[in-house]
Amino acid sequence: MSKAGLDGGEGAAGGSGSSDKAHEDKTTGGKVPGKPSATPIGPGWTKVTCPCCVSERVEPLVLVKLGPKVRPETKRWLIRLIGAPQNDGGAALLAHPGEDASGDIIVVSAPRCSLLRATEELGLCKPYRNGDMAAFSYNDRDNFKDSDNMEEFLTLAERHYIVKYELDGLRAQRDLKIPGLPDSFILKSRANIWQKLGSAGVIVDTVPLQNSAKLKALGKAWYSGNQLSQPLDSVNEYFGSSVGFYFSFLDFYTWSLLPPAILGLSLTFYSGEAQKEMESVSGSRATSIDDETFSGHMIQAVFSMIWSTVVMELWKRRSATLSYRWGTLNLAERFAEPRPGFQGELGVNPVTGRLEPLFPGWRRDLRIALVSVPVVGLFLGLVVLGMTCFYWGEARIQQLHKDWNSLLSQTLLYMPSVMHIVYTNMLATLYRTVAQSLTEYENHREESAFENHLTAKVLVFTFFNNFAVLFHIAFFKQDVPLLRKRLASLLIVTQLVNQVTEVVIPFLVDRFISAPIRAETEDDPQEDKYRNQSSLPAFPGLFAEYIELLVQFGYLSLFSCVYPLTAVLLLINNITEIRTDAYKICKLFRKPFTPPVADMGVWQTSFEILSFVSVVSNCWLLLLSPRLQELYQESKMSGTNILLLAVMVEHVLIIVKVILVFLIPDEPEWVRQKRERIEYISMQALKQQKLQES
Amino acid sequence: MSKAGLDGGEGAAGGSGSSDKAHEDKTTGGKVPGKPSATPIGPGWTKVTCPCCVSERVEPLVLVKLGPKVRPETKRWLIRLIGAPQNDGGAALLAHPGEDASGDIIVVSAPRCSLLRATEELGLCKPYRNGDMAAFSYNDRDNFKDSDNMEEFLTLAERHYIVKYELDGLRAQRDLKIPGLPDSFILKSRANIWQKLGSAGVIVDTVPLQNSAKLKALGKAWYSGNQLSQPLDSVNEYFGSSVGFYFSFLDFYTWSLLPPAILGLSLTFYSGEAQKEMESVSGSRATSIDDETFSGHMIQAVFSMIWSTVVMELWKRRSATLSYRWGTLNLAERFAEPRPGFQGELGVNPVTGRLEPLFPGWRRDLRIALVSVPVVGLFLGLVVLGMTCFYWGEARIQQLHKDWNSLLSQTLLYMPSVMHIVYTNMLATLYRTVAQSLTEYENHREESAFENHLTAKVLVFTFFNNFAVLFHIAFFKQDVPLLRKRLASLLIVTQLVNQVTEVVIPFLVDRFISAPIRAETEDDPQEDKYRNQSSLPAFPGLFAEYIELLVQFGYLSLFSCVYPLTAVLLLINNITEIRTDAYKICKLFRKPFTPPVADMGVWQTSFEILSFVSVVSNCWLLLLSPRLQELYQESKMSGTNILLLAVMVEHVLIIVKVILVFLIPDEPEWVRQKRERIEYISMQALKQQKLQES
Ligand SMILES: [Ca+2]
Ligand SMILES: [Ca+2]
Repeated sequence: MSKAGLDGGEGAAGGSGSSDKAHEDKTTGGKVPGKPSATPIGPGWTKVTCPCCVSERVEPLVLVKLGPKVRPETKRWLIRLIGAPQNDGGAALLAHPGEDASGDIIVVSAPRCSLLRATEELGLCKPYRNGDMAAFSYNDRDNFKDSDNMEEFLTLAERHYIVKYELDGLRAQRDLKIPGLPDSFILKSRANIWQKLGSAGVIVDTVPLQNSAKLKALGKAWYSGNQLSQPLDSVNEYFGSSVGFYFSFLDFYTWSLLPPAILGLSLTFYSGEAQKEMESVSGSRATSIDDETFSGHMIQAVFSMIWSTVVMELWKRRSATLSYRWGTLNLAERFAEPRPGFQGELGVNPVTGRLEPLFPGWRRDLRIALVSVPVVGLFLGLVVLGMTCFYWGEARIQQLHKDWNSLLSQTLLYMPSVMHIVYTNMLATLYRTVAQSLTEYENHREESAFENHLTAKVLVFTFFNNFAVLFHIAFFKQDVPLLRKRLASLLIVTQLVNQVTEVVIPFLVDRFISAPIRAETEDDPQEDKYRNQSSLPAFPGLFAEYIELLVQFGYLSLFSCVYPLTAVLLLINNITEIRTDAYKICKLFRKPFTPPVADMGVWQTSFEILSFVSVVSNCWLLLLSPRLQELYQESKMSGTNILLLAVMVEHVLIIVKVILVFLIPDEPEWVRQKRERIEYISMQALKQQKLQES
Repeated sequence: MSKAGLDGGEGAAGGSGSSDKAHEDKTTGGKVPGKPSATPIGPGWTKVTCPCCVSERVEPLVLVKLGPKVRPETKRWLIRLIGAPQNDGGAALLAHPGEDASGDIIVVSAPRCSLLRATEELGLCKPYRNGDMAAFSYNDRDNFKDSDNMEEFLTLAERHYIVKYELDGLRAQRDLKIPGLPDSFILKSRANIWQKLGSAGVIVDTVPLQNSAKLKALGKAWYSGNQLSQPLDSVNEYFGSSVGFYFSFLDFYTWSLLPPAILGLSLTFYSGEAQKEMESVSGSRATSIDDETFSGHMIQAVFSMIWSTVVMELWKRRSATLSYRWGTLNLAERFAEPRPGFQGELGVNPVTGRLEPLFPGWRRDLRIALVSVPVVGLFLGLVVLGMTCFYWGEARIQQLHKDWNSLLSQTLLYMPSVMHIVYTNMLATLYRTVAQSLTEYENHREESAFENHLTAKVLVFTFFNNFAVLFHIAFFKQDVPLLRKRLASLLIVTQLVNQVTEVVIPFLVDRFISAPIRAETEDDPQEDKYRNQSSLPAFPGLFAEYIELLVQFGYLSLFSCVYPLTAVLLLINNITEIRTDAYKICKLFRKPFTPPVADMGVWQTSFEILSFVSVVSNCWLLLLSPRLQELYQESKMSGTNILLLAVMVEHVLIIVKVILVFLIPDEPEWVRQKRERIEYISMQALKQQKLQES
């Protein structure tokens, strides 16, 4: 196999190659060169097993990076395994050995039939002949649009995911010895091959290959201009629906900040108190705040409580629409294999009857109770410690300011807040790593259980970490001006810290440390360009991004009546956030493998819970607001009645929110009809099948 | 066709008969007589179309009563239709003309294959060869236990329901004229035949036929002895899973009343205040109730709030277990045809593509907004009117008692309460009829939507009607002793009124009016015995029964801290309730057709909502309790703090309940595994099918 052959503009699946399986030489050379989007590596691909998949062009999809000491016979075995049909325990994909049989990469692609079968297995919907979406069925493939051109039919993200899905699904059919590896290394029957080879150091990395032309176009439409809207469909096409949903939500949420921002601005200026308030915040407590400000705060609070429910309901509708458009409305539930990290003694799974590792639930519960809970508790303790230090510092600085009363001491007033925020952020980063290891140790069988436990851990901490101080100020110290000051500094500092850790640092690292190493020229062989991609850091996932949004949503909804300008600050932040997040995922990290999803999953619920908690919080904050306190001071007898009123308002608002949630349908009427149509057609097809058979 | 032939102990499907379709004479006479459980009507059944269904015994399942003026040719046509295969637009059942071709009944049964196919279509689970439950599959029928004996394989309720299901599913395949009916009567293509014939007066009634031997045995085991447990499996077998779930819940709920009853009793006697309290209730307000009583009430309230959540969670687990045992764990969701009462203009359904009546959603919304809401409001107004009258009466009687102070006036004190309860009950009965018509007018397409709207209407009213006065007394008058008095009389009077209207009146009507007409002797022909069954009143459904339970659950949980003996009274009431309800459904009413269900449906939710509302109610009642009021009087400054404490306790309890709901799994581990196993096997079978096909 010569290097020259690899750079050629034409390739042939089933062409002559060094693959062990190439019995027939059925070269279909001399075809038109492939489109630029699929940079074909010439011949050398393993042969496709089914005749309909023979195509003149093979799109390299995934790069498998092998360990430095992997022997050529191991690589040959791996290539054969990837290319073998599924009945023989293979992945039914296409593999290419790169420059030569001893190089440290394998390039993987997928033939049409494997892609189509996986599309059905995943339960993806695709446009039918008549223009509607329909659940894809392999037998009915000819009636689906573009089902002969995989680059149109499936999104790049789907193609990447399917290759990864097939590779991860490789199981040893019997006890296997692998050529080129020590005899002591035996793949047990039904072991997960990809994972075992990973831990044995044979496979170092599995990387989806970027499509640089598409990526460039996407970046141009996404973050380089002054555009206000995001190219969400292209994001879905390139990065997959889970990334698509994140950016759609970010977009939707950002624009839905407009009403509270406008309200906040107008209330602030209408009451003409903007300056006065700012002064009173930094100086001593204001003793006479007039009725207008108070009723303004009340309007703001009630508005924001209703607003948050309406926004989340409307988002659900938008989300359903996107899910229909992206074909993820009808995803198949699968009886998942244990997640790769799952460990246990071999036994028979009572559900599937398969031999696989089993781990009794009570041992997991024990680990949760004896390890996870105490460790999480410890971290919550650290949060309290931080809070105590903050108060101590705050008191000292106040004292200093009183003694000196200079511009310097005025600035120093913000110091404890800033330091506390930094401490808080660092603690959060550390905790995320710890939570990951704890959840790993809990040894959950399913990926979803793992995700849920991890999210729960992080959410408990995040809430505590971000809001404990604020709640303490609000309900124990009952000091609204201090709360307002804290909120303002939090809003500004947190955003700055986030942008720096999220984008600026990775950018600098990339620019000055990684990029020079990676520098490539036009003349480099294709393989080296691929290798370069695997040197980028892995994408850290959307977890931190969602947490960030959730926290700012918390500031906005929990304390909306205290600082009316919150929405304005968040709106400005998010418009930049969209760009930096987009830049980050396009440029600074490796493209992630993302499974198709139908919605935001657990995050949807988190936002909704927060929206309900906000009612309780706002009602109590209003109760503590200076104006009410005054009323309360003036007439002693009305204190209890005001409290009763607040409780009643709280209960009524919660009921109103519950009713709103029920009254606003979760999906638009037309999406509901389409979804039911998809389900109906699937069911009819099934019945037809059964009828024909009997 | 002679009468003698009908009474014979042996019959033959496919035997010679007067049926138009009897081409072959394949009499299999001379077999052993059938078991007593299936009283066979001799020959005369329509021929079965598939050879495997030929059986020596046909079990009469359903009686179709025809109108008095139905001509023999119409009856013949109907019999042919019932017997015709489904491909020809028939029901694929067996029909028998009764005494002769001109009689006013048709007896319907079902051949094995039709029953088995419907079993698969409904998604019922049945015991597999290996003892586990599995989703029934017609193709795999030989591996299911007893699949050759329908009387073992399916429950009587399932057999009845399947016959009804097939009859209701009859659709005209093209525009049809029916022999013997005026030419103007045309069945339009795709019209629901059974419903059209019903409204044309051809079919007067469709009645499931009782199995008197089984019914007798069931009655003996259920309500005639002193047994403490109900034969729930037999109830499910005879009356179907929806009735089975009602009685299981009644049973479960009744026994779970034991802990609060014991607590209530011991608290009442421990504080040694039982007598004193009773006196203080009927006499003037007690001025010094000691701390023990108060803390007793508090224990009672907190216990009952946690108890209600735990009970509902445990019931869900029990319900899942029953659902597994009764094979309804995996019911198929169907794309329902419009419910029979649904009207609209013919159009193409966007989901199924079928021609059927369509009714735009906005017209339904309009009807709800302009008719239903005002009418429901009117009834709520009537409730308020009743309440006002009650207060007026109460005040007058109090005055009277003060003036006279005799034993008579003492007794009269209870008059307003009693009269108000009677008024309330009558209003509720009237409202139920009105709600039914309103929901009918709203013209819902699906049976489930109809049920939900009806239930919502009735629940809103029931809550208002039963609890408005109590809440008014509790929170506006803040008069705990009056509340206690009301609760005691409500608990006793409501139960009495219910038992009378539910059982005693129907029993008397049956005994002295209906039964003499129905009197039958051993010598009567079988047909007359069947006719007698159709003269019983139709079973009114479980709606009223569930409402009754919900209301008493409301008394118990909403006001538990006021009257600790509530649970004791309810426990006694429910033990008799089980018997009277059982007697009622067995003896006083016609056997209902009941669809298989997997749980209590909307009632489950109702109980859970009530359980959460109870937290709010109890916390406020405790706040109003005399002891707290005293504390409040003593130290003015602590009033607000006590209130704050109550609110905090309320919020904490709600959070505890939410956590409990999440921590207690909704189904036992083994049921979860079995359910997943069922789903997994179904999915595997489907995959296998697809694989074979492609
Ligand atoms: Ca971000
Ligand atoms: Ca009853």
